[in-house]
Amino acid sequence: MPASGVARMQLGVIGLGRMGQIVVERVLEAGHEVVAFDLSPEAVATAADVGAEPADSVEDLADTLGDDKRIWLMVPAGDAVDATLNDLDPHLDEDDVVVDGGNSHFEASVRRAEACSAAYLDCGTSGGPAGAELGFSLMVGGPEWAYDEMTPVFDAVATGPAGHDRMGPAGSGHYVKMVHNGVEYVLMQAYGEGFELLAEGRYDLDLEAVARTWNNGAVIRSWLLELCEEAFREEGSDLGDVDDHIAGGSTGTWTVQEALEQEVPVPLIYQSLAERFGSRAEERFSRRLANRLRYGFGRHEVARKDD
Amino acid sequence: MPASGVARMQLGVIGLGRMGQIVVERVLEAGHEVVAFDLSPEAVATAADVGAEPADSVEDLADTLGDDKRIWLMVPAGDAVDATLNDLDPHLDEDDVVVDGGNSHFEASVRRAEACSAAYLDCGTSGGPAGAELGFSLMVGGPEWAYDEMTPVFDAVATGPAGHDRMGPAGSGHYVKMVHNGVEYVLMQAYGEGFELLAEGRYDLDLEAVARTWNNGAVIRSWLLELCEEAFREEGSDLGDVDDHIAGGSTGTWTVQEALEQEVPVPLIYQSLAERFGSRAEERFSRRLANRLRYGFGRHEVARKDD
Amino acid sequence: MPASGVARMQLGVIGLGRMGQIVVERVLEAGHEVVAFDLSPEAVATAADVGAEPADSVEDLADTLGDDKRIWLMVPAGDAVDATLNDLDPHLDEDDVVVDGGNSHFEASVRRAEACSAAYLDCGTSGGPAGAELGFSLMVGGPEWAYDEMTPVFDAVATGPAGHDRMGPAGSGHYVKMVHNGVEYVLMQAYGEGFELLAEGRYDLDLEAVARTWNNGAVIRSWLLELCEEAFREEGSDLGDVDDHIAGGSTGTWTVQEALEQEVPVPLIYQSLAERFGSRAEERFSRRLANRLRYGFGRHEVARKDD
Amino acid sequence: MPASGVARMQLGVIGLGRMGQIVVERVLEAGHEVVAFDLSPEAVATAADVGAEPADSVEDLADTLGDDKRIWLMVPAGDAVDATLNDLDPHLDEDDVVVDGGNSHFEASVRRAEACSAAYLDCGTSGGPAGAELGFSLMVGGPEWAYDEMTPVFDAVATGPAGHDRMGPAGSGHYVKMVHNGVEYVLMQAYGEGFELLAEGRYDLDLEAVARTWNNGAVIRSWLLELCEEAFREEGSDLGDVDDHIAGGSTGTWTVQEALEQEVPVPLIYQSLAERFGSRAEERFSRRLANRLRYGFGRHEVARKDD
Repeated sequence: MPASGVARMQLGVIGLGRMGQIVVERVLEAGHEVVAFDLSPEAVATAADVGAEPADSVEDLADTLGDDKRIWLMVPAGDAVDATLNDLDPHLDEDDVVVDGGNSHFEASVRRAEACSAAYLDCGTSGGPAGAELGFSLMVGGPEWAYDEMTPVFDAVATGPAGHDRMGPAGSGHYVKMVHNGVEYVLMQAYGEGFELLAEGRYDLDLEAVARTWNNGAVIRSWLLELCEEAFREEGSDLGDVDDHIAGGSTGTWTVQEALEQEVPVPLIYQSLAERFGSRAEERFSRRLANRLRYGFGRHEVARKDD
Repeated sequence: MPASGVARMQLGVIGLGRMGQIVVERVLEAGHEVVAFDLSPEAVATAADVGAEPADSVEDLADTLGDDKRIWLMVPAGDAVDATLNDLDPHLDEDDVVVDGGNSHFEASVRRAEACSAAYLDCGTSGGPAGAELGFSLMVGGPEWAYDEMTPVFDAVATGPAGHDRMGPAGSGHYVKMVHNGVEYVLMQAYGEGFELLAEGRYDLDLEAVARTWNNGAVIRSWLLELCEEAFREEGSDLGDVDDHIAGGSTGTWTVQEALEQEVPVPLIYQSLAERFGSRAEERFSRRLANRLRYGFGRHEVARKDD
Repeated sequence: MPASGVARMQLGVIGLGRMGQIVVERVLEAGHEVVAFDLSPEAVATAADVGAEPADSVEDLADTLGDDKRIWLMVPAGDAVDATLNDLDPHLDEDDVVVDGGNSHFEASVRRAEACSAAYLDCGTSGGPAGAELGFSLMVGGPEWAYDEMTPVFDAVATGPAGHDRMGPAGSGHYVKMVHNGVEYVLMQAYGEGFELLAEGRYDLDLEAVARTWNNGAVIRSWLLELCEEAFREEGSDLGDVDDHIAGGSTGTWTVQEALEQEVPVPLIYQSLAERFGSRAEERFSRRLANRLRYGFGRHEVARKDD
Repeated sequence: MPASGVARMQLGVIGLGRMGQIVVERVLEAGHEVVAFDLSPEAVATAADVGAEPADSVEDLADTLGDDKRIWLMVPAGDAVDATLNDLDPHLDEDDVVVDGGNSHFEASVRRAEACSAAYLDCGTSGGPAGAELGFSLMVGGPEWAYDEMTPVFDAVATGPAGHDRMGPAGSGHYVKMVHNGVEYVLMQAYGEGFELLAEGRYDLDLEAVARTWNNGAVIRSWLLELCEEAFREEGSDLGDVDDHIAGGSTGTWTVQEALEQEVPVPLIYQSLAERFGSRAEERFSRRLANRLRYGFGRHEVARKDD
């Protein structure tokens, strides 16, 4: 049962990956009901195990929910969202509310909000798997009444009432989440530069101890620094066999693209993104040319690949 | 009285500015004794008001402490440290311990540690005035026995036992603090770029609400983000009349200089430091030249200062 | 008359701004014929003054040219190109050749090449007004036969046979020109940083003399450095009243966008572009936030706009 | 014999590496006399072959020159300059002139100018081995009379009278050369980014043809771009087996250090220098940490070195 004074809600959840399952569990724990669907029957069974009502299809889920449907999508950003909405839309009307909790581009969310027969909330979700226990930070865009309707669910999925807020109209939730991720790239690189200098520098340091000392009272303490501390504890001060390739980059790319359009300089976000591209290149043509040019003007010996 | 099982200590504190007073108070609150000196009699009186024994001079402070002196310097980095050590050194021997809790350059600390007749601990201190309540993060360099001796004091001044650690030999405390500050510059700029994009971007956002939502569960939550939240609460989403000049830069400059020497790339730290320099320039010569060059090759009209 | 052995050609030129007039004059000087049209009758008259046959309309120009039309567009990039092609296309067939000598986006050129009834050459043009005497550098994309057909005209408009080349299929000419401009942004900023350091640095230098000495034998000599020399000669070592706002940025933005798509790091191009954005901002939100945060963690006084 | 009206001079040259031999040859070709010394007898013999008078030692060279000595040092920057000056100084007086044509730090030149018994000219030399035919660009610092005295020699060694100039007092020649090199790093990186984008981009391009077309009339034409053209001609558009390690970096480091001291932002120079450091690192700790952190907050799989 929800906390006293809070109405019990019934939520449909479509998409039962790691993040979707967390949504199911947190909503159930808060005393609400969940109807769950995923293309994978195993995922549906997992959700049923913790108390969700299983659905066979999007249509079945919609039928089960009845009127005034409240539905949370947690499917991969991109075509999967459109495909799900295509299946879902015939069953929706203007009193229903759909939440997209995935990492969609804000412009796609604006477009979907216009096309959707229900009220549409774009919901940037941050916190990762750790949110299972702590709850997430939810940045929500869309109509105010729909946001208000969903508040009991947001209270359950977020870290609590302070962990979610309506940012503004359609798209603003995913817009703020996009910028959040741009900042995230920089924070990772900031700690990276600092610890690289410590690792390569003059002293033989225990980087876990450095991170722990910083996390206890220093200006730069943060959750990411706690994850650094954990990384050094689990991998060692030399990070063991962790490779130096950084995957990902789509939300950072979106952030830079939007900053170009707004003519806002974001050199650190750009640089952090470029660092990822560079980390994945086998070799860098620009460096090879510089190497060769030094021979051109100074007869400095050219390093060759066979050397 | 200190916590049971912990010996009561007597600490000399030289330098009673904002940070020095916090050291005095936290050490007294932990049940230890303090003898306090500052060039300003008012500062000494303030320390006496909360229970410190006042000293008239460095000599007086040294005499009062007796054998096995434990002394904390909290004077401005630079010449003031050397001047204080000059006065103090005749009263010191190898059983004494001196802590430099200021923002000294690590190379100065190495030099001072060699010159000092007592054991010398360089102690990077982070947390700012907020440390009055929470305690600081203390990064300590120097002899192990001296660090162990001072542990009860460090426990009191830091956020607790996890808030201080011995980084390594002489200079390592200030070295780690220097790098800490380099990272700090980047974190500030990271949030700056993110909020600038939000402020200039497509949506009319309440930045305090954004920061608060992020601080509750988002990956980028941190103490600095809490300070952003506070800034928006106190100044408004548009930051009111806050100017765009950023003062300071010495520890960032040291970090970049050390990174140059170690040949470690720190583009984000450099960029964040350069941002400060740029923020203080009335105009930028490089931009004026670019403006004029566009006329040179493309006959684009030159913007003039009178325009 | 063209050089012996070269067939005399008839070229239609649409768009008679500064660059279009240069095309007219160089083609006439090489002994070919020109039929010229522009929406401005004055521009047409100017072209007629130097020997071009005036046309009243796109249709008139097309009629005058007869079969196997050879037409050079020199209209502003964007809608004007599409509008001109709309008027022109009914008069074109597959034996005709249209050259777009403007600064179009390469994707627009690919699209136009597909839609155009004639063979379509996208031609990146560099050199600016100085090209009136020296000739331009022409980077051409499109069908090989059409490029070969136009060679006499390209010889005339370019610095000579070495000043033009076929880069590859449709779009490649404007693609290479786009990257050219990205590099151009960096070169301007490179000299800008160097001269700014000299202007602000330890010595009182005559920057025209510095530039002239460099232009005579130094590794960094270039045409842009000659333009720096000219700028210092005409404006003085302090650049007089030249303002520090840098206009423009579209081709640099395209370059960065393409580099994002190709996942190629271009930190210098990005930084040079961001410098332009920054130069046009009245104030920078990121710097204002950093200013305020320094108060938050260190009680450093906040500079206010009224101060 | 020198050009009519120019006095025949006698120049001592110490240091007969590649650059020193070019000085010898150009000064001899201009009709002056040369007395040459190097620690390597083979190098002395090479100079004698083209007409220089060989010297056995610094002392021998000084004796041969007689009064009003004019001496050009072309020894490696650093200790070798001081060692040579130590040997030379007992033979010098205030009517003599010593030129340091090497890549010395400007502060060392200021110090040496103060210590030297003769007039001392610091002479930044740019142009590399190609200067053998074309002559160099010479940036000279030191007393005006000494610069005037040496003019016939500078005319011979430089590209001509426009290829050398007095920048200002002691140190200014090497200061301007230091900044020249900072700019040089950026220009190399600028072309590097451009050609990397072309090499990795949408079209299959002949980069030699691109560079050649640009060198004929484009805004970004330069001597370094001619060297790019040469590199692609000799190595192929893919740069064959040229490795991506970039050696060197001392003058770039000096430039950034000076810019830090002057608080002048030089993000492109810094970035270009950092690119060299990065190109020489086996792996980057910052990237390894970012890789691991993505697991920390998002459970993204960690790439391991063995994978």
